[in-house]
Amino acid sequence: MRVVVPFAAGTPKTRLAGLLDKTERAAFARRMLEDVVAVLQDTAADIEVIATQSIGDIGVPVRVDDRPLTPAVNAVLDAEQPVAVVMADLALLTHSAIQEFLGTDGDVVIAPGRAGGTNALLVRVPEFRVDYHGTSFLDHLARAHGIGASVSVVDSYRLAIDIDEEADLVEVLLHGEGAAKRWLVEHGFQLSESEGRVGIERTTA
Amino acid sequence: MRVVVPFAAGTPKTRLAGLLDKTERAAFARRMLEDVVAVLQDTAADIEVIATQSIGDIGVPVRVDDRPLTPAVNAVLDAEQPVAVVMADLALLTHSAIQEFLGTDGDVVIAPGRAGGTNALLVRVPEFRVDYHGTSFLDHLARAHGIGASVSVVDSYRLAIDIDEEADLVEVLLHGEGAAKRWLVEHGFQLSESEGRVGIERTTA
Repeated sequence: MRVVVPFAAGTPKTRLAGLLDKTERAAFARRMLEDVVAVLQDTAADIEVIATQSIGDIGVPVRVDDRPLTPAVNAVLDAEQPVAVVMADLALLTHSAIQEFLGTDGDVVIAPGRAGGTNALLVRVPEFRVDYHGTSFLDHLARAHGIGASVSVVDSYRLAIDIDEEADLVEVLLHGEGAAKRWLVEHGFQLSESEGRVGIERTTA
Repeated sequence: MRVVVPFAAGTPKTRLAGLLDKTERAAFARRMLEDVVAVLQDTAADIEVIATQSIGDIGVPVRVDDRPLTPAVNAVLDAEQPVAVVMADLALLTHSAIQEFLGTDGDVVIAPGRAGGTNALLVRVPEFRVDYHGTSFLDHLARAHGIGASVSVVDSYRLAIDIDEEADLVEVLLHGEGAAKRWLVEHGFQLSESEGRVGIERTTA
């Protein structure tokens, strides 16, 4: 099955700007992409990264499409099904989580992200199109129902947690198993604990 | 299997104080407990709520233990195994999520919560004890390894999301299926969207 991984190469992870400068954010986003690609490479997926600009060699085919996420993904859905769309910032992703996702039955399979996002999507019918703005999880449910497609919702923490903000880095340190976690550790990040609350702190440059 | 649900009846959900007054927080916490109990009642579990003070009838046996969470749960583990410990604020819990959890092999089975919490725990060996302070997920992993127990970590969003703060109510409105979601809707809460970000707003008293 074709699995596309959209990657916004130009403006990486602005909500991490309080912790990481722009160069660091780009490096960290790249590590997360590498982790997602590596996990997918252990499946039978036919992987393609769709990047908003050239990103150099990442071990799988890269196609540049500078459009926003929604039209770029809809162009993929215009061309073929089945196809899966997996976000590039799922730094907790594991082989078993993605295998279970890709093996789930349904015309449309959705792994929701926090706050109503759509972190992974599998489309097996020609009529379905995406809209990633806002509560895309609810919108995608409604669209699937509107075309009479069966829907499966996958319950996975590792698929639900995309890495956008400071608190998410705690999850990478706790549960990550790849390059993104190693990058954080190498750049001085570690868990901190204060009055029973867990956070993140940076001890070296 | 015995499943205990610890419930802190006296000081419910202080991090929701910006949205709900104390009476409302108590009512909402009670609805979440009812949801967790109802989901467990659809399993073969032998359910017991351990409450810090009397909470009236909830359809299953309630035992009052006014100690903090850790010693109260360790008293349960002193007395019997196997036993599962499921937090009372898992408002997204579903039958399939808890069934998969309770059916997972391992001497110690952990469903982590965000920021290194332990939202559900299943203990099948006599030597294991809990410490819910701080990054309890890591502490529980270390303790299990220390006694030579096998560990399984369950990947479930519905088990990982406990309801502590404002952003969590968004998840209840999006994914909840029980009394807690109904309570929020009846009390005027609905999803809001601003510049693509999803939040919660209250439209009536």
